[in-house]
Amino acid sequence: MKFSAAVATLFLASATAFAPSAFTAKPTTALQGFSSKVFETQEVSFADTKETIVKGGRDLFPLLPKAFEGIERIGVIGWGSQAPAQAQNLKDSLAECGADIKVTIGLREGSSSWEQAKEVGFSEDEETLGEMFDVISKSDLVVLLISDAAQAKLYKEIFEAMKPGATLGLSHGFLLGHLDSIGEKFPEDMDVIAVCPKGMGPSVRRLYEQGKEVNGAGINSSFGVHQDVSGKATDLALGWGIALGSPFMFETTLRSEYKSDIYGERGILLGAVHGIVESLYRRYQRQGMSPEQAFLESSESITGNIVKIISTQGIKAVYDSLNDEDKVTFQTAYSASYKPAKEILQEIYDEVSSGNEIRTVIMHGARLDRYPVGKIDGTDTWKVGEKVRAERDEENIPLNPFTAGVYVATMMAQIDVLLEEGHPYSEVVNESVIEAVDSLCPYMHYRGVAFMVDNCSFTAKTGSRKWAPRFDYILDQLAYTAVDNGAAINEELIADFEKHTVHQAVEECCKLRPAVDISLFAETSTKEIVIQ
Amino acid sequence: MKFSAAVATLFLASATAFAPSAFTAKPTTALQGFSSKVFETQEVSFADTKETIVKGGRDLFPLLPKAFEGIERIGVIGWGSQAPAQAQNLKDSLAECGADIKVTIGLREGSSSWEQAKEVGFSEDEETLGEMFDVISKSDLVVLLISDAAQAKLYKEIFEAMKPGATLGLSHGFLLGHLDSIGEKFPEDMDVIAVCPKGMGPSVRRLYEQGKEVNGAGINSSFGVHQDVSGKATDLALGWGIALGSPFMFETTLRSEYKSDIYGERGILLGAVHGIVESLYRRYQRQGMSPEQAFLESSESITGNIVKIISTQGIKAVYDSLNDEDKVTFQTAYSASYKPAKEILQEIYDEVSSGNEIRTVIMHGARLDRYPVGKIDGTDTWKVGEKVRAERDEENIPLNPFTAGVYVATMMAQIDVLLEEGHPYSEVVNESVIEAVDSLCPYMHYRGVAFMVDNCSFTAKTGSRKWAPRFDYILDQLAYTAVDNGAAINEELIADFEKHTVHQAVEECCKLRPAVDISLFAETSTKEIVIQ
Repeated sequence: MKFSAAVATLFLASATAFAPSAFTAKPTTALQGFSSKVFETQEVSFADTKETIVKGGRDLFPLLPKAFEGIERIGVIGWGSQAPAQAQNLKDSLAECGADIKVTIGLREGSSSWEQAKEVGFSEDEETLGEMFDVISKSDLVVLLISDAAQAKLYKEIFEAMKPGATLGLSHGFLLGHLDSIGEKFPEDMDVIAVCPKGMGPSVRRLYEQGKEVNGAGINSSFGVHQDVSGKATDLALGWGIALGSPFMFETTLRSEYKSDIYGERGILLGAVHGIVESLYRRYQRQGMSPEQAFLESSESITGNIVKIISTQGIKAVYDSLNDEDKVTFQTAYSASYKPAKEILQEIYDEVSSGNEIRTVIMHGARLDRYPVGKIDGTDTWKVGEKVRAERDEENIPLNPFTAGVYVATMMAQIDVLLEEGHPYSEVVNESVIEAVDSLCPYMHYRGVAFMVDNCSFTAKTGSRKWAPRFDYILDQLAYTAVDNGAAINEELIADFEKHTVHQAVEECCKLRPAVDISLFAETSTKEIVIQ
Repeated sequence: MKFSAAVATLFLASATAFAPSAFTAKPTTALQGFSSKVFETQEVSFADTKETIVKGGRDLFPLLPKAFEGIERIGVIGWGSQAPAQAQNLKDSLAECGADIKVTIGLREGSSSWEQAKEVGFSEDEETLGEMFDVISKSDLVVLLISDAAQAKLYKEIFEAMKPGATLGLSHGFLLGHLDSIGEKFPEDMDVIAVCPKGMGPSVRRLYEQGKEVNGAGINSSFGVHQDVSGKATDLALGWGIALGSPFMFETTLRSEYKSDIYGERGILLGAVHGIVESLYRRYQRQGMSPEQAFLESSESITGNIVKIISTQGIKAVYDSLNDEDKVTFQTAYSASYKPAKEILQEIYDEVSSGNEIRTVIMHGARLDRYPVGKIDGTDTWKVGEKVRAERDEENIPLNPFTAGVYVATMMAQIDVLLEEGHPYSEVVNESVIEAVDSLCPYMHYRGVAFMVDNCSFTAKTGSRKWAPRFDYILDQLAYTAVDNGAAINEELIADFEKHTVHQAVEECCKLRPAVDISLFAETSTKEIVIQ
């Protein structure tokens, strides 16, 4: 086991790199496949499927004018995590290839972001900065990057403001989820596409800049074509992704994207890991450990050891690295935890898939003036965690085999639910493994659970608060009691784990990582991360 | 403070006795008021409102033929908690007044309940027992008492099977909630009424039998008229309730009924009290208590002391019974807990009201073959609880003032959400106070949390599992941390508590209690309680 001692240096880009998707039978998430008139596609072997991707790179910029044919103005709406990055990347790429396309920022009148947009070169005088609805009405491609809640509130006015023939561009499927949940649809005469960079905005910008030196650096994106009235939607989406600097583009659908995204953050990415730590922290103390030791064997063991093995060597390496006695402990914890964790994960999937979870987020937003999002780390667990971090010896964080069994079982259960629901491997690996171990757990390792959860979107942080306690209770009630009552190891479950197809898929993902590090905390600690 | 030492003897009927409802502005729960052509109505002062009720009693049985005019056959569908009681009471009452109305049980072909129905006098030969759809098709009043899940599954076939002009009778608003949640409606040409006895079926039967000796004994019912095509629906509903032996009938709507019911059981009736106990049990141990003492000061203090004071003297009596020092502790806990508890309660109300929670129950039912409802009391808390109960000294269970502050704050928050949402006092007091202290907490006191929760309906026990951990986490994260950080007592909140209108309403409810005890555990320990 080797891990980096530098907490502040993360492979953030690698969080999210990989190839496209399995074609499955499930209608809600199944892909149609794609072809391009502008860009070359490639086949990549990925777990037990072959998938089609488009490789990006600056050498393809000369093809952008063809991909953006008919587009004279791109309106980038909002100024959150993604918008500053995407607007600047689009502007730079289109300038570089000599396309005569204006990238214009649209903001609410009086928005405090107005000045920030000016600082990086957008301006009212050049008509590259304006009131959002005015910008929307003048744009041929509207890249809508306002928050989920704002999208849900304003979508009607936005659709009405768009000019005939314009394309709606999204970087997340939430708006489709919201429309699904209230039984509405996008206007039928409109192209609707999504390009979803698999990393937060600041990384999209920073890696793009590094990509000028190191070809291939950038944040990979999934893309989805939801409505293609013009017949040009796929090439426009691919062009958009390449202009953002994505080294790879893999296909998804907007529905598959929002389901896996909202599901994943409620599961192992945020909610489940919080609940797991709380339940183990109590368990280890009941077994006689001091609070400090219990925190070390639960939270620290996950964020400072287990996820680092997964990040560099894959999921199964956690198990393989254990001695025989610890392997038995792992198997015992895994056997007892897999099904209880999967019960909650399947419930989450059903809640998201049915539209319930999105309605919950919208209703939560409506209560926000009365009930602001509360602090989750003032409790004993996280106060002790602060002490433990202060005295941390990064090289000697234990790999607790029981903790590993619970954590890995939950991760595998999350993967299995997504695969059973027909999601492509690319998405499954991103939303269940890479984003957890490379993007998020390092935040928790650095400053505790709230620093991870509360740097995420409103949709994510309220969902994590909702589901973390469910994982905690069910593990305590069903998994740990089973262990204490001497339940046998489930050999079949362990065999399934050892021979699981996802291990090869994770390995493939690792190969596709751009070799550029991002110093995460220096640039983003005050920003909201949009988990995608 | 006085409490009964006899755990097994409960005022179950009193769980649920009271008068009708405030008229409020909220459209979804507002009552239209009612008048009767058959029965005399009365005005009763109830908190700050006047309400209309109908008093029942065996002396009104001669009026039943007029109330049931046009009804030749009543089909009672199902054989769960309510059906055996309602069918027998209806049959006996109608026989006593000489009405020529046949009460027929409808069951699934091959149902194991067939023999039980025969044992109490229903038979195929007399055409008082038959296949459910056959019975439905021949009945003028269909009293649909199959489970929530079965109603949701079969409603279309049931509506289709009913003969023209027949009335659909329910004892719970769940089916309306389900139809609301999927955007469907009852057939418009049909009378739809509900009579909801405020106690489990066995009590409805047992008190009816006692009512033959003690006039006025019985279980009170709320009633609702959802569709009145014939113009006779109100009198039929009142007649049904009187034939069941209800001492009082108060008005509700089906929507108000299902919302308050599903909300209440997720709150203080089941979910909240579970979460409160778990969070306090941990807190007291962190403060240095032994597990046994922590259980005594949390769970035992609630079920063995606090709820008994509320049951006999009202909510405020808990506070009034404390000495000055303990009053400060109570105020501190109350001040810190009220708003966090209310946050979760408002979320529950919104989830129920939006139809989300009903969809969740239906989806949970669909997963049941893969994920059966798990055991909740194998954990440390409830194992220690078993030991504490075994050594219990009923007369010396402590009244922990911190526990009291948390529990009472949560109860008051639950009351306030219901009142703010426009529910009538009768319903509010039942679903937030009386049912908790008289009907449910005694179960928890007798054999722990699972004995209370898992003797309830599927809708209730899965809802309790979902919400208990939310109360636990938010109290730990926001309330107890506030106390530990020295947050000031909220004088305004305490003043609101002291002068709250609900105290007088609870007092009125107590006056309306029939003076008949029910020995709860003797007759119902193997039955599912339908919380209503």
